[in-house]
Amino acid sequence: MNNSILLNNRPKETPTNDDFKFVETEKPSPKNGEVLLKTRYVSVDPYLRGRMRDEKSYIPPFELNKPISSMLVAEVSESKNDDFNKGDFVSGMLQWKKFQTSDGEGLQKIDPDVAPLSAYLGVLGMTGLTAYFGLTEIGKPQQGETILVSGAAGAVGSTVGQIAKIKDCTAIGIAGSDEKIDLIKNKFGFDAGINYKTTENMQEAISKAAPDGIDVYYDNVGGEILDAAMQNMNRNGRIINCGAIASYNKSETPTGPRVEGQLIKKSLSMQGFTIGNDFGDRMKEGSEQLGKWLQDGKLKHEETIVEGFDSIPQAFIDLFSGKNKGKMVVKTD
Amino acid sequence: MNNSILLNNRPKETPTNDDFKFVETEKPSPKNGEVLLKTRYVSVDPYLRGRMRDEKSYIPPFELNKPISSMLVAEVSESKNDDFNKGDFVSGMLQWKKFQTSDGEGLQKIDPDVAPLSAYLGVLGMTGLTAYFGLTEIGKPQQGETILVSGAAGAVGSTVGQIAKIKDCTAIGIAGSDEKIDLIKNKFGFDAGINYKTTENMQEAISKAAPDGIDVYYDNVGGEILDAAMQNMNRNGRIINCGAIASYNKSETPTGPRVEGQLIKKSLSMQGFTIGNDFGDRMKEGSEQLGKWLQDGKLKHEETIVEGFDSIPQAFIDLFSGKNKGKMVVKTD
Repeated sequence: MNNSILLNNRPKETPTNDDFKFVETEKPSPKNGEVLLKTRYVSVDPYLRGRMRDEKSYIPPFELNKPISSMLVAEVSESKNDDFNKGDFVSGMLQWKKFQTSDGEGLQKIDPDVAPLSAYLGVLGMTGLTAYFGLTEIGKPQQGETILVSGAAGAVGSTVGQIAKIKDCTAIGIAGSDEKIDLIKNKFGFDAGINYKTTENMQEAISKAAPDGIDVYYDNVGGEILDAAMQNMNRNGRIINCGAIASYNKSETPTGPRVEGQLIKKSLSMQGFTIGNDFGDRMKEGSEQLGKWLQDGKLKHEETIVEGFDSIPQAFIDLFSGKNKGKMVVKTD
Repeated sequence: MNNSILLNNRPKETPTNDDFKFVETEKPSPKNGEVLLKTRYVSVDPYLRGRMRDEKSYIPPFELNKPISSMLVAEVSESKNDDFNKGDFVSGMLQWKKFQTSDGEGLQKIDPDVAPLSAYLGVLGMTGLTAYFGLTEIGKPQQGETILVSGAAGAVGSTVGQIAKIKDCTAIGIAGSDEKIDLIKNKFGFDAGINYKTTENMQEAISKAAPDGIDVYYDNVGGEILDAAMQNMNRNGRIINCGAIASYNKSETPTGPRVEGQLIKKSLSMQGFTIGNDFGDRMKEGSEQLGKWLQDGKLKHEETIVEGFDSIPQAFIDLFSGKNKGKMVVKTD
């Protein structure tokens, strides 16, 4: 038998288990030219929340009563496609199913000897590439500059901080527990960390951690932390808008202090991006650089691995209360 | 005798005549190496409002009971400096005085045969350069794209629209009266115009005027017009934050819909700038290009010229109710 997870309701605010539905179907058989894939690891990511909303965005919304998809690592368990052999490992944008067939399009072969399979969903996958291109191509950090990162213990943020250090910058991270602050300082090499949950005045705390101001702010959260960072930006500073997890679960656009006055006064830029839209044609270049740093020991990674196919919805829901450290991945087999 | 205009109070909201003070002093005499300048034209600009506030910005604030300064065109009425002759015309950042001395630093000689003197405060001066560099270097308009400009009948906006047309783009302008809309369409060649004062739903009006969406929004006003433009931006659109006149007179930072979600969803950028901070070393290049377009008849300009030194404060105040068409200039002599 086969198992799939469908979108049952469009979540109103924070997603709940009711928004997902498990169904059992037949295990599919590959036709000529196809492979049968057995899911091994599933990536759950905050951006999927956006696809659960019925609105135009950079990728089409998920359909109700259809399987959800995200980046997966799978094993080829049967092959009728000459490009793949039984036992190969691949990554790709695939459905939340235990088994599925594919004609091979969009699948990347991955090598379990270079890094553990789950790393291909994190530091060597979309999240690593998001950190790499966002920071280096949009933030353009210069030696000696100060880089602030929110969601710093997360999959993207922890990689951003480490790349900042590789680029000889000062890296300051914002995260939501003392344990995460320890992690970013002691494992990932950040110079300083701010626990926003125990900090009353974020603007002051950033100013204290970064007395020379912030040159590049890599924003994974938006909202009031963005406001506090904005006040600390140096002239000609760059804000990279990568995520706005603070507002993903709001049904209306939240309000906040207008930014245009600050942007003009200090010649600041804000640039939103998504890896697929803006750097889709440069994935290979980015993966190679990240793989090199990983093998040289310059890049460490952290994962929260949850076990079991049935845990996928809960692992996704837990992202919004920050239960993960580093990349959240579900091991399905 | 000599006349000066000092900052009497820091304006609370919209400036009033009480915020300015006229004083009479002796007419100064140039020392060796100096020139005596007689003011001919004074530029009044919305950005001066920012300098009346006691806060750090891209240029230091004006001091209370000290003369205000802005760009002026003056005539050399006496010279003890070898670089200047009696009768030369110059432009420069100078004080609101009928007469003043200068050692010549920062003065640009200007040629009344290329364009009327007042044009050196507008289309060939800071406002023209602001339009030129903001649109071409930050907006990077591509042939066939749609450019939206607010404050379109103003000095910067009307030049932006014309440069958009020179670059083979569609130009849509937003302004505050039907007369201004006529002006931008019939004199400056905009493809369409929206009178925001008689339009209930700006978001819809922009969408109707630009059915293919907006690629570049050159924002001179900020506030709700920016919000409406934001909703109409195309993927990878660029927003140039040049002015935020809507908030200059507010004592606290106004609030509005948060932008970060939109920026990410559509890979948009917002970039604030000021001409002096960001393009100060490229003024000559810009002036030459603008002068060439002016002489070729590709660039038209509009001025509102108010007469009399004593009218300077009122002319400045009138900027905030949109009494000017094109560049607001005071002819002092």
